[in-house]
Amino acid sequence: MTDIAMIQAARDRISGHARYTPFLDSPFLDEIAGRRVLVKAECLQLTGSFKFRGAWSAISALDQEVRKNGVIAFSSGNHAQGVALAARMHGVPCVIVMPSDAPRLKVENTRAYGAEVVLYDRANESREAIGAHLAQERGLTLIKPFDEPLVIAGQGTIGLEIADQAREAGIERAEVLVPCGGGGLTSGISLALEACAPGFKVHPCEPAGFDDTTRSLASGKFERNEKMAGSICDAIVTPSPGEITFPIMRRICGAGIVVTDDEALHAMAIAFSRLKIVIEPGGAVALAAALFHGSEIDGDTAIVVASGGNVDAALFRQALERFGG
Amino acid sequence: MTDIAMIQAARDRISGHARYTPFLDSPFLDEIAGRRVLVKAECLQLTGSFKFRGAWSAISALDQEVRKNGVIAFSSGNHAQGVALAARMHGVPCVIVMPSDAPRLKVENTRAYGAEVVLYDRANESREAIGAHLAQERGLTLIKPFDEPLVIAGQGTIGLEIADQAREAGIERAEVLVPCGGGGLTSGISLALEACAPGFKVHPCEPAGFDDTTRSLASGKFERNEKMAGSICDAIVTPSPGEITFPIMRRICGAGIVVTDDEALHAMAIAFSRLKIVIEPGGAVALAAALFHGSEIDGDTAIVVASGGNVDAALFRQALERFGG
Repeated sequence: MTDIAMIQAARDRISGHARYTPFLDSPFLDEIAGRRVLVKAECLQLTGSFKFRGAWSAISALDQEVRKNGVIAFSSGNHAQGVALAARMHGVPCVIVMPSDAPRLKVENTRAYGAEVVLYDRANESREAIGAHLAQERGLTLIKPFDEPLVIAGQGTIGLEIADQAREAGIERAEVLVPCGGGGLTSGISLALEACAPGFKVHPCEPAGFDDTTRSLASGKFERNEKMAGSICDAIVTPSPGEITFPIMRRICGAGIVVTDDEALHAMAIAFSRLKIVIEPGGAVALAAALFHGSEIDGDTAIVVASGGNVDAALFRQALERFGG
Repeated sequence: MTDIAMIQAARDRISGHARYTPFLDSPFLDEIAGRRVLVKAECLQLTGSFKFRGAWSAISALDQEVRKNGVIAFSSGNHAQGVALAARMHGVPCVIVMPSDAPRLKVENTRAYGAEVVLYDRANESREAIGAHLAQERGLTLIKPFDEPLVIAGQGTIGLEIADQAREAGIERAEVLVPCGGGGLTSGISLALEACAPGFKVHPCEPAGFDDTTRSLASGKFERNEKMAGSICDAIVTPSPGEITFPIMRRICGAGIVVTDDEALHAMAIAFSRLKIVIEPGGAVALAAALFHGSEIDGDTAIVVASGGNVDAALFRQALERFGG
């Protein structure tokens, strides 16, 4: 299981390869939120999201003989790009299995990072069967998106950086708001902060209608979302928290915070005008929570993870049109 | 006059107050440009532009007895916000003189940074007369936007950071592309790199129709723009290079590069999708030069300064609509 030593080892492997992303702030955000807000701009990470860290952590930890055969992942989004680039930087083959109706741009971007994209028909084929066949045939290692200790350790390196950056900023207590899908990012950051910044409390943030983790934390057992589509925050929509990530979150995290799609779009527009960064809807739910759900947290400081920036131009324009002032 | 010791002293004064902005890159940019491209993301600086550095440098160098009376600047843009915030962080009064037809948002932002905004009628009043009166009455010190050695030294701190970041990235030779208005940023960076990274050559970048510095460098004497309005790159439109900055640029810089408004908009859209940063048109001319005018520079590496991100949502939407894919 992931522990602080594993996260520190992941940091040692990742150092010099991933970006150490900046802490950004603005008096305009503080005023809206009614407290100090610091944004960990992980949208500036390689491939535009935190997923690169988990992918690098998992691939770099493989035995060299195993790694050279290559890796495989199921994803049409940020995890695909993270795994593809981390594999290319290790000089090993990478296969990404995507549904044939995935947006063309995502397919092209994943190919541009050097991956072989294998498309499957969602209606008639099983990606697991295709993946298992390819993995066996070529000796590929599956890189899971969140329910994998090495991936959680990689995402946890963000928590180590937050602890260091907060210390430099003189912050001893804070509520840390993290966009939450399967919980790899949230659990990794929680483990890192539990060890390195015990005055910090993590809250997973989710889009309305897809608040499986918030409900699971409230009930103490695995709750599922009724649907798997229909949120603009598609990057963080999962059926339920992970088998490995949920026990970690239940042990360490505070209550979840749920934001609307409109609040996420509004947060994107504010990040545009005040921080000069591009955040995707799923990556903006934690900022939205800090800006519009301040009554659900305590203390005078919120640290927000802006977890990704891979948003289509059309949707970003919509956010600016509605909330761009 | 500004020299490397003055720039290093400015860095010492600014350290811990301004952001040390990141170097960003993407394989997609390299492919378009045909060489390696590294972007110094100064749009992530406090107040959204490099101007904060020059303002801090000038204000922090004032004698304490003089400084406590306050400062004054003429600007409706990035310089105004930089001076306002730097003054507030020093705890001293700040007056910004702006035309009464300046966009409301710029007036509000400058006030939000704690400045007193004095509006004047462009048609019937002289800002210099108003400024001189206020300065004398209250003992305010004028902070000039570019033709001032301490301001040039402040902008030069970007050059010191570029030299350090390029060294860490293993880069010994590069063409450095810098958005150029009055030349404070360009001359400051040139002086810093001349001393710290002699394999680097700086090229000022300008919008078509407002290429006074490019023409001045070609002719060897001060050339003027025919007009002062009509470019979307309004942040870097000046009548001619500065009396102090031009001799520096003439001695050290390579040829200027001129880009169209459309190329600047296109560069903004690419920075949105590939780097996840927001750049304003005037701040995007150097990136546009790297992406679309590669034949005008040499070598295998271009370092680009993205100097600011203060762009209206409507204009940014236009860039995405036309070039956002």
